[in-house]
Amino acid sequence: MTGLREYLDGPHKAARDVVRDGLAAHADLLDEGLRLTRDEYRDQVLEMMQQITADGHTSRGFPKEYGGQGDLGGFIAGFETLAFGDLSLMVKAGVQFGLFAGAILHLGTTRHHDEYLADAIEGRLLGCFAMTETGHGSNVQALGTTATYDPATGEFVIHTPHPAARKDYIGNAARHGRMAAVFAQLVVGGETHGVHCLLVPIRSADGEPLPGVTITDCGPKLGLNGVDNGRLVFDQVRVPRTALLDRYAQVDAKGTYTSEIENPDRRFFTMLGTLVQGRVSIGGAAISASKVALTIAIRYADQRRQFAAPGSSEEVLLLDYRMHQRRLLPLLARTYALHFAQAELAAEFVRIFGGDGEGNDEHDRRALEAQAAGTKAVGTWHATETIQMCREACGGAGYLSENRLAALKADTDVFTTFEGDNTVLLQLVAKGLLTDYRESFGKLDPLGTARFIAGQAVEIAVEKTSVRALVERLRDAVPNRNDKGDPDAGLRDDAYHSGLLRYREEHMLAGVARRLRGGIEAGDDAFEVFNRCQDHVIAAGRAHVDRVVLEAFQAAVQAAPEGEPRERLKELCDLHALATIEGERAWYIEHGRLSGPRSKAIMALVNELCALVRPHAIGLVDAFGVPGAAVDVPMVVPSQHE
Amino acid sequence: MTGLREYLDGPHKAARDVVRDGLAAHADLLDEGLRLTRDEYRDQVLEMMQQITADGHTSRGFPKEYGGQGDLGGFIAGFETLAFGDLSLMVKAGVQFGLFAGAILHLGTTRHHDEYLADAIEGRLLGCFAMTETGHGSNVQALGTTATYDPATGEFVIHTPHPAARKDYIGNAARHGRMAAVFAQLVVGGETHGVHCLLVPIRSADGEPLPGVTITDCGPKLGLNGVDNGRLVFDQVRVPRTALLDRYAQVDAKGTYTSEIENPDRRFFTMLGTLVQGRVSIGGAAISASKVALTIAIRYADQRRQFAAPGSSEEVLLLDYRMHQRRLLPLLARTYALHFAQAELAAEFVRIFGGDGEGNDEHDRRALEAQAAGTKAVGTWHATETIQMCREACGGAGYLSENRLAALKADTDVFTTFEGDNTVLLQLVAKGLLTDYRESFGKLDPLGTARFIAGQAVEIAVEKTSVRALVERLRDAVPNRNDKGDPDAGLRDDAYHSGLLRYREEHMLAGVARRLRGGIEAGDDAFEVFNRCQDHVIAAGRAHVDRVVLEAFQAAVQAAPEGEPRERLKELCDLHALATIEGERAWYIEHGRLSGPRSKAIMALVNELCALVRPHAIGLVDAFGVPGAAVDVPMVVPSQHE
Repeated sequence: MTGLREYLDGPHKAARDVVRDGLAAHADLLDEGLRLTRDEYRDQVLEMMQQITADGHTSRGFPKEYGGQGDLGGFIAGFETLAFGDLSLMVKAGVQFGLFAGAILHLGTTRHHDEYLADAIEGRLLGCFAMTETGHGSNVQALGTTATYDPATGEFVIHTPHPAARKDYIGNAARHGRMAAVFAQLVVGGETHGVHCLLVPIRSADGEPLPGVTITDCGPKLGLNGVDNGRLVFDQVRVPRTALLDRYAQVDAKGTYTSEIENPDRRFFTMLGTLVQGRVSIGGAAISASKVALTIAIRYADQRRQFAAPGSSEEVLLLDYRMHQRRLLPLLARTYALHFAQAELAAEFVRIFGGDGEGNDEHDRRALEAQAAGTKAVGTWHATETIQMCREACGGAGYLSENRLAALKADTDVFTTFEGDNTVLLQLVAKGLLTDYRESFGKLDPLGTARFIAGQAVEIAVEKTSVRALVERLRDAVPNRNDKGDPDAGLRDDAYHSGLLRYREEHMLAGVARRLRGGIEAGDDAFEVFNRCQDHVIAAGRAHVDRVVLEAFQAAVQAAPEGEPRERLKELCDLHALATIEGERAWYIEHGRLSGPRSKAIMALVNELCALVRPHAIGLVDAFGVPGAAVDVPMVVPSQHE
Repeated sequence: MTGLREYLDGPHKAARDVVRDGLAAHADLLDEGLRLTRDEYRDQVLEMMQQITADGHTSRGFPKEYGGQGDLGGFIAGFETLAFGDLSLMVKAGVQFGLFAGAILHLGTTRHHDEYLADAIEGRLLGCFAMTETGHGSNVQALGTTATYDPATGEFVIHTPHPAARKDYIGNAARHGRMAAVFAQLVVGGETHGVHCLLVPIRSADGEPLPGVTITDCGPKLGLNGVDNGRLVFDQVRVPRTALLDRYAQVDAKGTYTSEIENPDRRFFTMLGTLVQGRVSIGGAAISASKVALTIAIRYADQRRQFAAPGSSEEVLLLDYRMHQRRLLPLLARTYALHFAQAELAAEFVRIFGGDGEGNDEHDRRALEAQAAGTKAVGTWHATETIQMCREACGGAGYLSENRLAALKADTDVFTTFEGDNTVLLQLVAKGLLTDYRESFGKLDPLGTARFIAGQAVEIAVEKTSVRALVERLRDAVPNRNDKGDPDAGLRDDAYHSGLLRYREEHMLAGVARRLRGGIEAGDDAFEVFNRCQDHVIAAGRAHVDRVVLEAFQAAVQAAPEGEPRERLKELCDLHALATIEGERAWYIEHGRLSGPRSKAIMALVNELCALVRPHAIGLVDAFGVPGAAVDVPMVVPSQHE
């Protein structure tokens, strides 16, 4: 489809193509996970990771003075492209270059940059990102590991006080990592200052665990078995004072703690906020994996025949069955929608973090974190759903490893719960909206919402989304007057679609705010108040992301090259919008936004749009530009789609 | 929970306990899939399968004269229990004892029984069930393999005429099978008589493929890697005339084909119908796997804490969060519902096949096939959804193989598409209802529906489910008068629940019939007519199964021991019913069966019922009676739930 692929590739086409070429060059890796033992596979992934540093991709996002290219946008795009290939490689690279090197870059200062950054970027210093503990994943503020300053020796003592404080699921730890960026409660002079990050060597040059460090292997996993996840236990391990990544807080030799950010919560979330890149990247990777799965399943459905039509000796192509279209094409449309939402997020990320000011505007940063959290949650759930549907749509053939869907399914499955559990992330999104990204927003703690709402900010939140004003405003904005008379009128109108999604978002937020305030004012227990509407909070977060994603898609249609690209995208965008509304039609009817006949008209139109998209389905997956090495599987005859 | 476990175990408790004990005795297998190479794992599974024959479980369902125990009900219950353990073992045993030995028993005659049955039952003769081909899965009637009778030698010549006719995904073929029950087009005297089954030796005693038989390995799969799935290609392989399993059709030495069933379609579906046990068993296995996953995830959620409530230093148990309850408890309720629907199906299966008459009433058999197809489709999709949710609910810990959810997810994934693709099966369910199980019902061919509807039966189908009469009847039957006034009144009334589900089922069926008839009468292309409402057909099939499942649960509540078991089951049954109605509430509102306020009241009640069930959640999963060996995983502290 002329021009569509270029449009999708966007401004970072060159960075994407470097990774595409690399992927084609070492496509063997895609099979090796099946042939090799787990340790061999891990070593192979490490080798491959070190090879791709030579492509220049992995250093792209780092400052030039440390061997990087200062091209954050290209780095993000390249990482997204890397997810077309072996996902263990993508995750291992993410741990090394995104999380470990990223922590040094963002949380450290010149001393750390000078000492470690070039080695980390080039893959000579292999590192871990040791945040999660067995007892605490989402609630990072409650981590148990301690880093206690000993002024007598000028060292920090890193310690695991109890089994639940063991660092767990740490990538690069079980086999290859030499150093870990360890998140621990910083204790100075007997006072705890909250979670900070320190660089702790964990293995000697010959690969043996250092004294006091116990490393165990997490063992086999559902997927990503090319990544050596492990557990770290520290027994009074001493590191020099300079091991503290001290950009946001410093400890001097005498043991005086200083920080330019006085509020401990705000300090914590400022530090954590610099790590938003991980969520941006995982969301992008999930969307890429969905593209791979759809490319395979749609090509298969365009070749595989089953059951002859009456009066015909030739069997019917799977993709000509309505049910098959219904199962795959709305997911294709949503993948496009998420692609553009992700592109918008990545651009915003680069705007905020790519310049010299590096995220200085706190409101911008909080908003970016919420956008990243929302896109990550929706994108990764989308990948799980899409890959599952693709597997089923390919029947038994889809279950065989040789056809790649098995690995896609297994490898991406953890995306919904790592880099932030999706339900917790959607709470974070909703909370940001309720509090207009004020103060302690960013806190993953869901209970913080209730506490916060109990405080003074509730008036602002509720005023902002006051139901009565909202409904009146929306009554004018949403062109639902079409709902009377001809049920089909205006159904493909952009403003109608976004108006409905916006109405839902704001109505839900207002409802949540009202319920929270009502409960607190009635004197109910804060946890009870929050917990009663937790499902409502999460649904409101989701409604917000749905609206943002749709509007990103609509904007991309407007900006698309005239002619075929724009026409095809408009069809897909309508399909996506109407399938989304269809999925929530109960809510719209309950809230008087859809009549029964109009709701049925929308369902019928979704079917029609599927039929409209169907003849272009192959062109639409080809436009994703997934390299042949990643999608030429035995069950699909390649010649038919080249 | 006193009495509940016994009630769930039902009349075949002894058969279940034999398998439970066996599972505890060879629990090692659950880890071995991770430690061993694929071939070692396969051999280990074979060894285990041969060991369990000693338990007497695998022979239980076979006639006493061949070493069996003539206890079909116990056999089915035991097989269901086997699915608590390693699923490769369950599938391998299913292939050997269910499919292979089952084909000999049901399609063969005394000669075959005498010669092979005892060896097959004891696991001495390892066999395959070679039905599916690369080019044809669901459309079995279109298989390409041929079995041509050569009167000169009195042999059948088995042949694979083209690559798409290769037998594919055949369990037991890649490594262990010695013989295959091969489904092939029977050609006698130049005339094709449709698909029949023949016993074809494929390997010599020393394990080498026999001349003319090419065996390849399907290689690694997403799961079930302890099963040696392979491909079989036949090059003019000769077998004696007696290799034809000739219960329903015979070929004499001179090459005369005879059958007591004249209509070839009916003959085909009669033969296939005897194999319904496979679908009954897989549906049961899927429900068992869901029980294992829920036992693990609910125990974890009752131990794992995250985020402290305001004013409390102790963090909150996951299962006390509303969202967590919402995610897990309706699935727990549906698992109970499916348990009872499966028990009803198994009892019906035993009634029809367990006696001497073996399925003589054709209408009964067709109805049983539809019930098995529906329960299999809904049960296996339920397993996929439930295990996925359990995995996510356990976060990163759920992704580690040591906690078992990974294997459950990977191993069960193929259940939705093997033993009949679920979408095709739901079409079959709908078709049976539309045609009242007449004549060619049973044909998986979806287009058969359109053709059939075009014929004389359409009047009967449409009359039977005439919309006008239906609506009038239902207006009286469904107690939706409560919908006015108090929106909560009667919401926990059994008749209200089943009335709503029944209304939906019959309304959808009537709608489908009307659309099909309308299209055909308008002279539209039959395929187009069918295809336009394929999604509607499938939804109608699903609506039927939902109603059957609910009514089975309601009947089980009525029959439960008084006191706690019945009280707990009633809560779960209400939760299941209302969550189902909630899921389809858009449809009910569109069709005037629910008002907006009542719909919201139902959602609120689902939340309340979750809270009501929550304190009993541990007791409710304990009642499944999953042996500790299958659920005592590192992330759950066993002492807390014993």
